[in-house]
Amino acid sequence: MSQEQSLPTTSYAILGLLTFGQELSGYELKQWADSTLRFYWTAPAMSQIYTELNRLAQRRLVLSREVGGGPSRTTTRYRVSAKGARELRRWLADSDPGFPLLKHPIALRLLLGHLLDPGQVRAMLEAYDAALADQRRDLRAVLDGIDNNPAFEFPAHVARWGLSYYDSETDAVRRVLKALPETAPAQSKRSSSADPTR
Amino acid sequence: MSQEQSLPTTSYAILGLLTFGQELSGYELKQWADSTLRFYWTAPAMSQIYTELNRLAQRRLVLSREVGGGPSRTTTRYRVSAKGARELRRWLADSDPGFPLLKHPIALRLLLGHLLDPGQVRAMLEAYDAALADQRRDLRAVLDGIDNNPAFEFPAHVARWGLSYYDSETDAVRRVLKALPETAPAQSKRSSSADPTR
Repeated sequence: MSQEQSLPTTSYAILGLLTFGQELSGYELKQWADSTLRFYWTAPAMSQIYTELNRLAQRRLVLSREVGGGPSRTTTRYRVSAKGARELRRWLADSDPGFPLLKHPIALRLLLGHLLDPGQVRAMLEAYDAALADQRRDLRAVLDGIDNNPAFEFPAHVARWGLSYYDSETDAVRRVLKALPETAPAQSKRSSSADPTR
Repeated sequence: MSQEQSLPTTSYAILGLLTFGQELSGYELKQWADSTLRFYWTAPAMSQIYTELNRLAQRRLVLSREVGGGPSRTTTRYRVSAKGARELRRWLADSDPGFPLLKHPIALRLLLGHLLDPGQVRAMLEAYDAALADQRRDLRAVLDGIDNNPAFEFPAHVARWGLSYYDSETDAVRRVLKALPETAPAQSKRSSSADPTR
């Protein structure tokens, strides 16, 4: 029991992805992690997926079997064991989730906006706005693939939560951009003085 | 120059707190960090503040002087040097901020909500809702202390951004709570079957 308690959260996260009723290969698990965990926990590398699967298999929390993919290769497919499901339920029930950890490099730099010229602040916020749109598009595609599928009721809740987070961030960025009155006039002055039609 | 580039982001963050025109003691810097960095970067311990100040002083990015507090004790007060301000501006201009890092243990557990009974999901979300209210109250008090002070224009932007983040999280949690229709009936069924007045 104390051995199980020492598993890092990411091990439980990956074990959890095997509880949706499907036997998955390491490659498929990586895809599932990229569609779920990436947005609010971690984006595990392929090598980390295999490290975690080996650890989970050693503790008999996952079971594996070789599935023939033709004469030339086989694929190892993983499923959660009864012991693994029990251990996951125990962890979910007993562990204190704690408060989310946020390391927000844009907010940190905005705090020091008095050291930047307004154009630098604006460029930073506009780049973040664009990055948010990319993330939102990716997560929207994930939700479109699972919405209305009862097996993925909870992943769909989390995906909708994530979309609302990106929307809130986008709104916040744009409110700050609007509240930087000294930036736009400076830019339009610069561009109008360089305007060849004037 | 390459020595400066190896500073961790938290060093720049603490150096940045010394650019608002005030000479601060380590204790005051800790209070400033708790009013700013804590909400979106890190909550540095008092010992880490002193570690960072020593490192910054060694590189002459901060200057310090002893201020007498009476015959029995003196306080060391720190201010940013011209070199420190230059180095901070260089870092702000040159470093790629990257995308925020979010480790959200509530979202992770909600993903696995099919393994929990509805009452457990509800209890977890309600506890997070309460924790968000506490954080929001703390940050609101910070904003009330700096709002309309031109020296803290950018910290006020960041604080308002943080409040909108907590509001968005609270809305998202409550939407999920409302979308858990099996929870409330199951609880009322249980309580009504145990209801001695029936």
